[in-house]
Amino acid sequence: MSVKPDGNMLIAQSGGPSMVINASLVGAVIEAKKQKRIGRIFGALHGIKGILDDNLIDLGKQSTSTLEAVAATPSSALGSVRKKPTAEDCTRIFEQLRKRDVRYFFYIGGNDSAETTHIIHQEAVRAGSDLRCFHIPKTIDNDLRENDHTPGFGSAARFVAMAVMGDDLDNRALPGVKIDVVMGRHAGFLTAASALARTRPDDGPHLIYLPERPFNADRFVADVQKVYSRLGRCMVVVSEGIADDKGTPVAATFIKEVDSHGNVQLSGSGALGDLLAGLVKDKAKISRVRADTFGYLQRSFPAMFSPVDAREARKVGQEAVKSAMKTPSGSIAIRRKPGRTYSACFEAVPLSAVARETRHVPDEYIAKSANDVTPAFIAYAKPLVGPLPKIGRLNAIKA
Amino acid sequence: MSVKPDGNMLIAQSGGPSMVINASLVGAVIEAKKQKRIGRIFGALHGIKGILDDNLIDLGKQSTSTLEAVAATPSSALGSVRKKPTAEDCTRIFEQLRKRDVRYFFYIGGNDSAETTHIIHQEAVRAGSDLRCFHIPKTIDNDLRENDHTPGFGSAARFVAMAVMGDDLDNRALPGVKIDVVMGRHAGFLTAASALARTRPDDGPHLIYLPERPFNADRFVADVQKVYSRLGRCMVVVSEGIADDKGTPVAATFIKEVDSHGNVQLSGSGALGDLLAGLVKDKAKISRVRADTFGYLQRSFPAMFSPVDAREARKVGQEAVKSAMKTPSGSIAIRRKPGRTYSACFEAVPLSAVARETRHVPDEYIAKSANDVTPAFIAYAKPLVGPLPKIGRLNAIKA
Repeated sequence: MSVKPDGNMLIAQSGGPSMVINASLVGAVIEAKKQKRIGRIFGALHGIKGILDDNLIDLGKQSTSTLEAVAATPSSALGSVRKKPTAEDCTRIFEQLRKRDVRYFFYIGGNDSAETTHIIHQEAVRAGSDLRCFHIPKTIDNDLRENDHTPGFGSAARFVAMAVMGDDLDNRALPGVKIDVVMGRHAGFLTAASALARTRPDDGPHLIYLPERPFNADRFVADVQKVYSRLGRCMVVVSEGIADDKGTPVAATFIKEVDSHGNVQLSGSGALGDLLAGLVKDKAKISRVRADTFGYLQRSFPAMFSPVDAREARKVGQEAVKSAMKTPSGSIAIRRKPGRTYSACFEAVPLSAVARETRHVPDEYIAKSANDVTPAFIAYAKPLVGPLPKIGRLNAIKA
Repeated sequence: MSVKPDGNMLIAQSGGPSMVINASLVGAVIEAKKQKRIGRIFGALHGIKGILDDNLIDLGKQSTSTLEAVAATPSSALGSVRKKPTAEDCTRIFEQLRKRDVRYFFYIGGNDSAETTHIIHQEAVRAGSDLRCFHIPKTIDNDLRENDHTPGFGSAARFVAMAVMGDDLDNRALPGVKIDVVMGRHAGFLTAASALARTRPDDGPHLIYLPERPFNADRFVADVQKVYSRLGRCMVVVSEGIADDKGTPVAATFIKEVDSHGNVQLSGSGALGDLLAGLVKDKAKISRVRADTFGYLQRSFPAMFSPVDAREARKVGQEAVKSAMKTPSGSIAIRRKPGRTYSACFEAVPLSAVARETRHVPDEYIAKSANDVTPAFIAYAKPLVGPLPKIGRLNAIKA
């Protein structure tokens, strides 16, 4: 008794790439190949732009070895886009999907992509179409509501923790003040993950500034001076999104570029790090002050992924396809099971529950001093990044 | 018939850290433990500064497991320094070494460290002392004369190649112009190594600018426009040390800090990348232009080392100790054996042959266009970085 496909599937990737977004794509495609109700499997190039331009490739015809190689490769294999569809775009997206007999639509991305998926689904409902719309979560920022954490975060957090681990050793060898700027527009999870670099009491990062707390330049300089006078060095990690008590990003003073979702360009510039280094040089009178901005390396470094993250990223892709067989729309959320050892489960949630608004680092993860994280955050983040390299140190045996 | 030690040994690390400088330290210490003519093994903290301050630790008493953990850890475990000794410093260094009955002195570092070792040895000869002075090579810049390549380069080159590999995928997903700034004051080897990121014809980096060729802003913008109009994106890698036709570093316009060797601070700032990105935005009228400066991650990222590099770094440490049993002074140079498969040998060379002056990327490794490297460079660099991750790509099967 063979089941006839009730339509084709289209999948696309959106927003900033991650180290595991392709694992989600491949998870969805491999699951879709098993589903008899799904006919052809289309991939749109560069998100909804590819739908609008009918720029599609056939994902059902890719070999397993190609798909597996893609799953292990960072960045978005279908290409990405930062575009919020207008009402007019939506009408055209329907025309295209109808023309291609698409019954199942999947969009991998963050909260902006969930919003796009939601808008498209609302339009489908209004038009009386039976198009099924699912969002597949992805964001290194870890800022999607409903989720314990999001695919992409663990791997980016792994990069940040390892980079700070090495950089702290560098700053120990040639002591000074080192400032590292980490991605995270409104949510400081990735910046907070730098705390995983610590293995011994005097290890950096010594100061961590998240966008969840107002940033005050004078307090920052005083914090740095205090650590520096105690240790003769200071390792600082700040989020690119740090903002003053009025909510104005520190970086906004010198950045003008804005995308169609209203997001200011923060990454791809070293200006914030240089500004903060200048502050310390001028006000704290410390001569060796350096700043590095980790930039796009955090989200696209090859072979750096966290195994847990890669596994879960694939799973959310699979689960989205399975859910679409049952319900007309939704997103897949990752929930952490209670218990001493880490394990996760996956649950379909309404699109509206993850779209638009973002999640922030909860208060219990931020130290009262506003310049560090708490042990509760470390316990939360540790299982997501996987085991980190062991750092050797000479014993201070006096000669 | 037991041999009595004829004196103690002192070893120190200098200059910028690397991912494998500790492998050299451990190679020397383990070899020294075998040498009956060597008594105690001192490590000076922060290079010659540690000798001047008598800030020493006992390396002979470190356990094998501690030493092996340190060998696999990036940065300089003894701490480092950027200091050129004055004549007065030299006098005091002798006093300290004599007081500690040091007969064997080893200094791990680049050409500045070779110069320091040379000055100390010349003073020893003048003073009629039988102090043996050896330089152990280390520099991610790969700019030591007499050497086919230097310990530290292969691992840093591996980081740069992988970072550009991932970043090129990122720039393919969200197309624009991406500029990556790589370390290398006068020698462009590390920047050139970014070419190893290419695995397919349209892969970046599409443009590579080395300090060995004068940098011209107009030509740079024209080069970028040409690639961008062909591919719709462009991945550029530039050395932090690029300079105009008068030899003035492009970065010199906004950087003022200078160390005691007369070197201008180039790293630890994103200003050069931002300046170049600004040029492309303004002159080429391309809107999405981003710059990242790889900074200290290139030299201190944990667990990123090239296996060949780590092995050779340990070997030069061993060889320096062996050579010091035979000759009063020198440096260990790495030579490549002729043949189809890569292998290296090690040779003692005079300190004066590696001190002070640096080596540059030879003409046969630089493309005539002055914005790329040649296949001969790829053949030279490939065995030094080790195997790179495989990059998967979807086949463009039209839907």
